[in-house]
Amino acid sequence: MDTRGVLTPQNEDFPRWYQDVLNKAELADNGPVRGTMVIRPYGYALWERMQAEVDRRIKQAGADNAYFPLFIPESYLDRESDHVEGFSPELAVVTMGGGRELAEPVVVRPTSETIINAYFSKWVQSHRDLPLLINQWANVVRWEMRPRIFLRTTEFLWQEGHTAHATRQEARDYAARILHDVYQDFMESVLAVPVLIGYKTEAERFPGAINSMCLEAMMRDGKALQMGTSHELGQSFAAMFDITYLDADGKQAHVWQTSWGVSSRMVGGLIMAHGDDRGLVVPPKLAPVQAVVIAVRDAEGVVEACHRLSGELAAAGIRARVDDKTGSGFGRRATDWELKGVPIRVEIGPRDLEQHQATLAFRTGGEKQTVNLSEVPEQVEAMLGRIQQRILSDATAWRDSRIADAGTQAEVREASSTGFARIPWARLGPEGEAALAEDAITVRCLQRPDGSLPHSSGEPDLIAVCGRSY
Amino acid sequence: MDTRGVLTPQNEDFPRWYQDVLNKAELADNGPVRGTMVIRPYGYALWERMQAEVDRRIKQAGADNAYFPLFIPESYLDRESDHVEGFSPELAVVTMGGGRELAEPVVVRPTSETIINAYFSKWVQSHRDLPLLINQWANVVRWEMRPRIFLRTTEFLWQEGHTAHATRQEARDYAARILHDVYQDFMESVLAVPVLIGYKTEAERFPGAINSMCLEAMMRDGKALQMGTSHELGQSFAAMFDITYLDADGKQAHVWQTSWGVSSRMVGGLIMAHGDDRGLVVPPKLAPVQAVVIAVRDAEGVVEACHRLSGELAAAGIRARVDDKTGSGFGRRATDWELKGVPIRVEIGPRDLEQHQATLAFRTGGEKQTVNLSEVPEQVEAMLGRIQQRILSDATAWRDSRIADAGTQAEVREASSTGFARIPWARLGPEGEAALAEDAITVRCLQRPDGSLPHSSGEPDLIAVCGRSY
Repeated sequence: MDTRGVLTPQNEDFPRWYQDVLNKAELADNGPVRGTMVIRPYGYALWERMQAEVDRRIKQAGADNAYFPLFIPESYLDRESDHVEGFSPELAVVTMGGGRELAEPVVVRPTSETIINAYFSKWVQSHRDLPLLINQWANVVRWEMRPRIFLRTTEFLWQEGHTAHATRQEARDYAARILHDVYQDFMESVLAVPVLIGYKTEAERFPGAINSMCLEAMMRDGKALQMGTSHELGQSFAAMFDITYLDADGKQAHVWQTSWGVSSRMVGGLIMAHGDDRGLVVPPKLAPVQAVVIAVRDAEGVVEACHRLSGELAAAGIRARVDDKTGSGFGRRATDWELKGVPIRVEIGPRDLEQHQATLAFRTGGEKQTVNLSEVPEQVEAMLGRIQQRILSDATAWRDSRIADAGTQAEVREASSTGFARIPWARLGPEGEAALAEDAITVRCLQRPDGSLPHSSGEPDLIAVCGRSY
Repeated sequence: MDTRGVLTPQNEDFPRWYQDVLNKAELADNGPVRGTMVIRPYGYALWERMQAEVDRRIKQAGADNAYFPLFIPESYLDRESDHVEGFSPELAVVTMGGGRELAEPVVVRPTSETIINAYFSKWVQSHRDLPLLINQWANVVRWEMRPRIFLRTTEFLWQEGHTAHATRQEARDYAARILHDVYQDFMESVLAVPVLIGYKTEAERFPGAINSMCLEAMMRDGKALQMGTSHELGQSFAAMFDITYLDADGKQAHVWQTSWGVSSRMVGGLIMAHGDDRGLVVPPKLAPVQAVVIAVRDAEGVVEACHRLSGELAAAGIRARVDDKTGSGFGRRATDWELKGVPIRVEIGPRDLEQHQATLAFRTGGEKQTVNLSEVPEQVEAMLGRIQQRILSDATAWRDSRIADAGTQAEVREASSTGFARIPWARLGPEGEAALAEDAITVRCLQRPDGSLPHSSGEPDLIAVCGRSY
């Protein structure tokens, strides 16, 4: 099946390829207000599956969901100049409400640190109230001058976790737990996107954090995408919002806090980490549709057989769907499902039906297979498992082939044109970091030589992973 | 266990009772911007369970979720004066973005009809694109002068469905399907809230709709709460936003549309439909915690036994939780779980453990039971089913006892002081409706004498159900 001409090839113009995928796979459109986006059903189904998987892990980590208001009094944001400095040029401000000018303008939340901490201050009284572990799924707004759908939009969807603990160690451990058990586990085992983990440098740190941990993935153009962050906030918000508790010894103490988030930007990461010139590639564990049963044409019994088989797949726990739109040509429909990255197509035509068989076609790797109808569910299930593993191992091998060890700034620049560079942080230093930044190359994270998370960003002998980024 | 004094009794001051429940059961707080609310973890868990149950039914009805922007250009709302008339005094308007005054102010969505229909106009071209069935879960903002948490807030959470069909009949059938299969089924079988269904009168109809169907529930103070609506929009939005398709005969035609929604107001409905002087009553199918296993005190093996039992309950598919906070008194904790409306408490103390038994205590109806430990999961499961049924039948019997047949306006006024009145619509008419409105009594819905949904609001011999409302 010839799909050339449908998408701009990646190596010709990657940003145009990305835009083509958004359009042709019907993932998202630009909204009417600059920088906003309309997430179409298939794009939203991807996000919903991400949400469900991340949410389950967050709950396993003991955090409870809650919901805080969209509107924040302007005065709340004035409380912390550091924090606000990072956000004020990005704010959307409501000045009219209920037909009148507001006495105090309200800000549309760019993040909820301030408003959540104002309530933490009410809710936390004693050490018995700790740890307080809260998560919120919400839309947030940061006015965006150079928007790109899913990657940088004025409004986006995310979760933001906010926690308060009795000790610094406990807060740090919890931030690391979220990084590993929620984010890394989700990204690697569900998204099949291998991530590098580490600490941000001081220059790249979240305003107000004492330590920012992050997860960085490589896109198919060799650039980095920050997939998620988990911050140790120390006690600065606790001081600002007066979040204190009576400890076991009867003394008042400030809490130690964390915050952490992932967003709809992960949809962009999914597209760019796995996609190819035929469109999206969606790993089976994420896929809203794991197997589509396609009626090749409307001959006797074919459509019925497709629905029956889809029912059997569903009964086997597989997210299956029927394409019986035989009014459109088979080739066109098969191409559309390829564009959408559905892992397996189960094709049934009149001749297949006669011979009690179906043809399995795979989005990634592998030849078509002819399978007896009764064996389709078992075979599809087995293949989905194998495909999931292979997407991750392929992405890992491909990424690793584009990470080079560097000893000089020149070598970092060289490696960053196609992927990431690894250089001892002691050799690069903040001065080298600043010099690279002039060429839009940044330190994505600081990690141990073996790739593990350091105890802190100040640990000796760390490696700086550098690259260009989204 | 004595809980007097914890809550204001319902018959003393119902609005204060409601506010007390919100506070003591830790459901929600007021936000800092007037009219906004903070939904606390337990309140949000109720909403999440509602969302999951409604969402599953919406998907079964064939609609797909999508997400449209929070910000709508002011000009979109100007397109339809009828529609805007209903909303303009309630709008929140963003005039500053990215540090500058905006050339065109943007409105924070009060509902998404306009923006969704602008995209429908792009997406619908041919009869093959129909029906288009879209749902959105989102926050919306309507500036509220007399806010009350969950019932009327400046920001609230909801789902709004928007569909486009080829014929009026298909649109009407789909709006009715959502009313019955999604909303009524959810409210009666999960929330255990009996609802009256019918059409709104012209005076109460949604601006822009040609027919509004609704679901009305009676609260414990005899007042009505509109729990959800499903509208036939006709072709007015299609004309306004130019949503046309090429029909099978090759002619351009406007689509027929519906919209439908339920919101976080249902949490208020849940509280007021079932709550009593001891707090919330949450029906088992909705309950985030169906059974709490309480360690009476921290004697040898008790806490371990509680966790073991909770694991067994979870394995049996029951949403169970352990309360092992033996640092607080047992009575206080039991009262707190009553306040939260948890259907069953499984209490284990040292003596119970010695005798291999536990005590089951029920939030509604029924004496405490002593059950052998090994039989707890089976017994809890059976009781949850019975409790679910009894909450619905009790609520239905109670409501029906407060519905009176009326023949005159005076009788309607009389009945509305304690519940609902039923009067032939032909007898009341729009003039009678206007007269009652002066006393804040409204026609909640028009239905057939047998309570079923009429074919339209113009059908003869309809009954007007009247009452005071939230």
